[in-house]
Amino acid sequence: MRYELYYWPGIQGRGEFVRLALEEAGADYIDVARTPGGMAKLTRLLEGKGTTTPPYAPPFLRAGKLLIGQTANILQYLGPRHGLAPANEGGRLWLHQLQLTVTDFLKEAHDTHHPIASSLYYEDQKEAAKRGAAIFLKLRAPKYFGYFERVLQGRKYVAGARLSYVDLSLFQVVEGMRYAFPNASKRLERTHKRVVALHDRVAERPRIKAYLASERRIPFNESGIFRYYRELDA
Amino acid sequence: MRYELYYWPGIQGRGEFVRLALEEAGADYIDVARTPGGMAKLTRLLEGKGTTTPPYAPPFLRAGKLLIGQTANILQYLGPRHGLAPANEGGRLWLHQLQLTVTDFLKEAHDTHHPIASSLYYEDQKEAAKRGAAIFLKLRAPKYFGYFERVLQGRKYVAGARLSYVDLSLFQVVEGMRYAFPNASKRLERTHKRVVALHDRVAERPRIKAYLASERRIPFNESGIFRYYRELDA
Repeated sequence: MRYELYYWPGIQGRGEFVRLALEEAGADYIDVARTPGGMAKLTRLLEGKGTTTPPYAPPFLRAGKLLIGQTANILQYLGPRHGLAPANEGGRLWLHQLQLTVTDFLKEAHDTHHPIASSLYYEDQKEAAKRGAAIFLKLRAPKYFGYFERVLQGRKYVAGARLSYVDLSLFQVVEGMRYAFPNASKRLERTHKRVVALHDRVAERPRIKAYLASERRIPFNESGIFRYYRELDA
Repeated sequence: MRYELYYWPGIQGRGEFVRLALEEAGADYIDVARTPGGMAKLTRLLEGKGTTTPPYAPPFLRAGKLLIGQTANILQYLGPRHGLAPANEGGRLWLHQLQLTVTDFLKEAHDTHHPIASSLYYEDQKEAAKRGAAIFLKLRAPKYFGYFERVLQGRKYVAGARLSYVDLSLFQVVEGMRYAFPNASKRLERTHKRVVALHDRVAERPRIKAYLASERRIPFNESGIFRYYRELDA
């Protein structure tokens, strides 16, 4: 089966968490909106045309007859099918719980540059962003990283011995933090060595390595979740 | 099986979405933190003691040997077990996708009063809150309500003919909006009649009705997701 991934073509964003899973799985997929006419297809589905289960927002995945929305939902669908999640219910619920915690983290990371509204320019909420980012870096990022550090105690990957889609997402979290907050990240990583070691293990996986070196990997930029504004990097 | 729900004892918050599902299911459960010594039990689990799958935050649910965190994850576990979700995979993924969209909405609703940081007092971010709440009410709430209105076209409940846990959550969303934004809600409801009709159908269900009239239903207050500040209700 060839999957169809629908996501904004110019950013990593939330779609990247799905891309990483598809790439590690060696799955057959097309990144629809990056193909000719693809954005029109994405828009049609967002408008609810040609589907009885319209997504609220990208990313969404066409998998045969299913159209699946919400990043973490897509990942819990893909996981057990591609060896990126255990088959038993307890293991799957645990992974999904962790992924939803990553989702929470991403929203907070995004809101550092858009605390008041996504629809306003960064420049029009810069003062609030500065206050928010400082607290995010002081309290929130360490709380989330500390949680995952604790989860990784005595475990190679979050689910134990085998790689899962959550590990791929944590790799991306570390990458994003390094891009958006290069200075603060250095301090953060010093006290969260298991998370960093996990990141490094993921980066060394042959398929991930090949993906990161390819043109399929869109560079970070100032339209995604993680954006670099020097004044926010305390 | 007697479920153990762990959530902050003084608020509806995210725990309320689980409470509504348990109540409608007529499930046997205890709201642990509202029992003597319960807060200490909650804290122990949050600290990772006595579990190999520690939650990041409440709510979490003990179901036999499983400890399940993240509201939407708990609901997707409970749903098919209590007739609040279809058994087939496509139907379950669709419901969960909708629930995660409710999750996104709740975070935005919460951030109307705490746009910069949850750890700051409301008074210390009131100006940012006013700007954010105005945009939330003008753009975001109508977008989410419009989406669910579209989903409900030609359907009694979001999954079709049968009630699901998502319908219970949408009931709570309408209740919360009415509490936090009484004026803005009136306008919002005028153009989203299917969502309101769904709310009313849920409110009439005997078990929900009994629950709402009981002491188990904690009143809305200014510590939860939905808080009433007159200056935010445009």
